[in-house]
Amino acid sequence: MPPPMTREECLARDASDPLASLRPQFVIPEGVIYLDGNSLGPPVRASATRAAALVTDEWGAHLIGGWERDGWIDSGARLGGRIAPLIGARPDDVLVCDSTTVNLFKLLHVGVALRPNRSVLLASDDDFPTDRYLVEAVAAQRGYTVRWAPPRNWHGATLKDVAVGVLSHVNFRTGLIADMEAITRALHDAGALALWDLSHSVGALPLDLGACDVDMAVGCTYKFLCGGPGAPAFAMVGAHLHAGVHTPIPGWLGHARPFAFAAQYEPAPGIGWAVTGTPTIASHVLLDAALDVVGSVAVTATRHKAMELGALFVDIVEGELPGVFTLHSPREPELRGNHVSLGHPDGFAIVQALIARGVVGDFREPDVLRFGFAPLYLSYVDVHDAAIALVDVMRTEEWRDPRFSRRGTVT
Amino acid sequence: MPPPMTREECLARDASDPLASLRPQFVIPEGVIYLDGNSLGPPVRASATRAAALVTDEWGAHLIGGWERDGWIDSGARLGGRIAPLIGARPDDVLVCDSTTVNLFKLLHVGVALRPNRSVLLASDDDFPTDRYLVEAVAAQRGYTVRWAPPRNWHGATLKDVAVGVLSHVNFRTGLIADMEAITRALHDAGALALWDLSHSVGALPLDLGACDVDMAVGCTYKFLCGGPGAPAFAMVGAHLHAGVHTPIPGWLGHARPFAFAAQYEPAPGIGWAVTGTPTIASHVLLDAALDVVGSVAVTATRHKAMELGALFVDIVEGELPGVFTLHSPREPELRGNHVSLGHPDGFAIVQALIARGVVGDFREPDVLRFGFAPLYLSYVDVHDAAIALVDVMRTEEWRDPRFSRRGTVT
Repeated sequence: MPPPMTREECLARDASDPLASLRPQFVIPEGVIYLDGNSLGPPVRASATRAAALVTDEWGAHLIGGWERDGWIDSGARLGGRIAPLIGARPDDVLVCDSTTVNLFKLLHVGVALRPNRSVLLASDDDFPTDRYLVEAVAAQRGYTVRWAPPRNWHGATLKDVAVGVLSHVNFRTGLIADMEAITRALHDAGALALWDLSHSVGALPLDLGACDVDMAVGCTYKFLCGGPGAPAFAMVGAHLHAGVHTPIPGWLGHARPFAFAAQYEPAPGIGWAVTGTPTIASHVLLDAALDVVGSVAVTATRHKAMELGALFVDIVEGELPGVFTLHSPREPELRGNHVSLGHPDGFAIVQALIARGVVGDFREPDVLRFGFAPLYLSYVDVHDAAIALVDVMRTEEWRDPRFSRRGTVT
Repeated sequence: MPPPMTREECLARDASDPLASLRPQFVIPEGVIYLDGNSLGPPVRASATRAAALVTDEWGAHLIGGWERDGWIDSGARLGGRIAPLIGARPDDVLVCDSTTVNLFKLLHVGVALRPNRSVLLASDDDFPTDRYLVEAVAAQRGYTVRWAPPRNWHGATLKDVAVGVLSHVNFRTGLIADMEAITRALHDAGALALWDLSHSVGALPLDLGACDVDMAVGCTYKFLCGGPGAPAFAMVGAHLHAGVHTPIPGWLGHARPFAFAAQYEPAPGIGWAVTGTPTIASHVLLDAALDVVGSVAVTATRHKAMELGALFVDIVEGELPGVFTLHSPREPELRGNHVSLGHPDGFAIVQALIARGVVGDFREPDVLRFGFAPLYLSYVDVHDAAIALVDVMRTEEWRDPRFSRRGTVT
């Protein structure tokens, strides 16, 4: 079905959209069309009460006893088990802990230790900064070199001597989806491990790490999973690798028997060693509340709507403003994640002008206007209206107002 | 003044205690005397509303805009600035981020890099497990050896070739306070750096890292600072070391210009590089709420009361039950932190029996009954009654009930 184009057609689609019933589960301010859920998802209705209940009914009622009575001690494993079906992993292989940065650091070191007698870490130089910085840091720490190559070149001599290939499944700027199955197979054929960063995929795209035989993965839970600002990340290590794991950050709570306070470190079995320090329970409960909603629908269903929303936006903008923006994302919705990036030299000011109208996207250097299409809380008519707002901002040139060109700390 | 001994004397002391007015600021269940604030402090009254307000008034109202409008992006630095006066550090040298485990890992690597051409990390083998495991791990990662020595031996040949000496200021089992000034000076005289773990000191003891010329420190905020389960930790690096810092975990948000998404990592100035990944804002606001209360009183004043409370407890228990417990802590209150450890082969069951009576301490392997005396929410009569409860548990032998010997995951 081609995407609807008129506002009336959008309203009709919304009326028959089975996902529309989820919208009231999310907290979005009146008058805002939120196209930045790919950066920070909104709260769910239950988030505030769950946060308060942690304090009142758990921490305040049980104090130290909450670690056992309220299950805090297993919270990371339990949340990992809830994320597992969203990524096609075994529940026991996934743990929620630390930040994506720290988890990626841990798994890069784990990967290097699992593939000795190799000398190269493979990555793509258009990947997210943390991924690039960490690959360089870990390579330096282990006496390895980094080979930079775009994923389309991850074959042949590019894979020689590679211990671990690390890649974001969905590129943070362009939204381009990497072929997880083919790339993982190529890495395996060359004797290397595949480490995927799912930050822009989890909760957005159907994922099957098991079918793709993925070795390790990390991901973020504050984007499409709506876990809140700085929500904890997750780490996945396939069961086939559990036996040989050697963590670079042996923390007391990742010990096989933490409360023995033993002199020697012994990693907790499975993925348990990845816990390191004491988990931030306040951020765990927000993620748990969000998963009640976000995890309640099959991603296959939501993905179809997300592709339609992205196409609708691009079609309206390009139809009304031909040649004004460069499409940085793949044109085919199937090839990109749930966000679309448009290039424009005045992108920063344009995004600010849109935000002033209540249409919230974000800007990424050097020229990227980024719009996310989270299908659980966006309607077709929301996206229609957002696209028309962008068209209007360009036609009126209101983005030229000097107040839109001042850059703050965060954009 | 000798500690009060009778219940009536305790009530009289409470009536004239200027800290007694703070008690209503804390949430402690009716009927509970909480002597485990050295493991997990209780919530403050404002914690629940602050947690809910983060969701409703910040995240839910401003969505992605919260990073700037609600100051989330600077939250770690702002909280570090609030902790600085509690430890006698410069506000700009302290950052709240990650867990104590991850921060200790970072600072150990930073310390090694700042003291090249050395070969030894110095630690004490009765220190907290995370500290021991990390020293061993970082030593192995950098080709160093670990020298284990009790802090009383940190002089002479013990300091030869040491790059970094790492030590808990207050021992987690015994409560013994290490001499921060003398040990730091000895390390400096030997050309080494001093890295202090303040987990059991911050908010409990007067600290002056500046006067002691301390190089680096980490600490936990869920004990005496009442930041909540898994509250974020802090890291301190003295200004004299800022120029040469080389972090092992270069995360995107610790970049000098994170939103430039630059190809090369460039550490944020000062302690800013320690941020690594996105901070867990939900746990930051709980810490902020707690600091409004915990940070409102001079630690010198609270420390005096804490010493009296500890002495009161020990005096009653030893007076009523001579020879039943071994005092694992120093007898002189001045030499121990705000907790007291008693040894007994049936310590586990005794602690459980006490908890059943509403007196909450904790147990640490192999035989340690641990009781913390947080002076902001404990009264003299609380401590009196807790000591009498312990006496009673021993005299009635109710701890022999089989239900008290079953061990769960957490003790």
